[in-house]
Amino acid sequence: MNLKQMAGYEAALEIKNGQIVGLGTGSTTHYFIEKLGIRIKEEELDIMGIPTSYQSFFLARDSHIPITTLDEHDVDIAVDGADEVDPDLNLIKGGGAAHTLEKIVDYAADKFLVIVDDSKMVTKLGQTPVPLEVIPSSSRMVLNILKESGASPQIRMAQMKDGPVVTDHGNFVIDADFGLLEDASKLEKELNSIPGVVENGIFSNVVDMVIVGSDEGVKKIRPV
Amino acid sequence: MNLKQMAGYEAALEIKNGQIVGLGTGSTTHYFIEKLGIRIKEEELDIMGIPTSYQSFFLARDSHIPITTLDEHDVDIAVDGADEVDPDLNLIKGGGAAHTLEKIVDYAADKFLVIVDDSKMVTKLGQTPVPLEVIPSSSRMVLNILKESGASPQIRMAQMKDGPVVTDHGNFVIDADFGLLEDASKLEKELNSIPGVVENGIFSNVVDMVIVGSDEGVKKIRPV
Repeated sequence: MNLKQMAGYEAALEIKNGQIVGLGTGSTTHYFIEKLGIRIKEEELDIMGIPTSYQSFFLARDSHIPITTLDEHDVDIAVDGADEVDPDLNLIKGGGAAHTLEKIVDYAADKFLVIVDDSKMVTKLGQTPVPLEVIPSSSRMVLNILKESGASPQIRMAQMKDGPVVTDHGNFVIDADFGLLEDASKLEKELNSIPGVVENGIFSNVVDMVIVGSDEGVKKIRPV
Repeated sequence: MNLKQMAGYEAALEIKNGQIVGLGTGSTTHYFIEKLGIRIKEEELDIMGIPTSYQSFFLARDSHIPITTLDEHDVDIAVDGADEVDPDLNLIKGGGAAHTLEKIVDYAADKFLVIVDDSKMVTKLGQTPVPLEVIPSSSRMVLNILKESGASPQIRMAQMKDGPVVTDHGNFVIDADFGLLEDASKLEKELNSIPGVVENGIFSNVVDMVIVGSDEGVKKIRPV
């Protein structure tokens, strides 16, 4: 079992019968969703999932997890991956370009669990750029504002074609390198005040537990 | 000539040859765009417009204003309407559900002119609800968060059908009544930090001049 799988499977064991579960996006949550589907079948559990992307929607459907919506149900627990986790359990997310709906679901959840392999644990956020979802027509203006603030931003391009990545909401993603983040929570708020920015990939003060897969086994970390 | 027309026509006279002009949305900017088209034709001006909505895009096209984009040009001057203007020239906008792109264009402009009839001048913002553009799947969560903060929010419904208003970006609009706003600038930032909120209709500290149509004629107001 690889490290992502260890974390994903462990998270699936945290889910209780009767819960509404936010289903994160990415390679680690992939394992979580698969394992949750297996548990629902084998243990005949009454659980419904709320996907955070078309990707997790398709996977939930294929894993036979009954799907519901935020319009119908509150979220008891959300399980999602992260690109970086700092010692205060603040996150950078958005490598999968799904961070807007992830933030909606994860912030709405009573309990928010993050699953990662130990390569994602950092002493300070900002090793990777901060992803921003932006309205396409605003992208040059947002790039300009970010450059003026000292960041190195670029529009994320799709790997298989010479065009931009387009999100599930029809928007672009800008990856902005700010260097190491001195105050992630402040930057999270500031970025959302730029006209055209729909949501950014900093998740601060919202995580209830991180499950880390490592060579020494699974570790569970709670906020201090 | 009605009061909106007076303000709109006066604003058209402020535009200089060679400028790139942000074209606001609504009944007052309607007159501005029409008059600008007439000036461009009669005076053979070299002016291009950047629309803030499909509505102003159609009107600009029909008024023979050459159209360009934020990707190609910076905005020299933007002219837009408002639902409320306070003595510090802070605004509530979004009655036309176009405030997201309006904010992108208006905030990007070197100079931002607001045109209103004098019924829009208020001593304090908040006579009308604050419009928020929200990702549809987040709307119940955003309504809950707004209610918890003491506001009375509701999803804006389309007048001619039993469904929600859908914005140019495919989103919903929530009108949130906060009563009179004690600190518009602070609320503007706070609302943008709610996951699912794309942009809100508070425009603070950005207006360079307000042109007011009144029974006593046209007044021009600049920030103190």
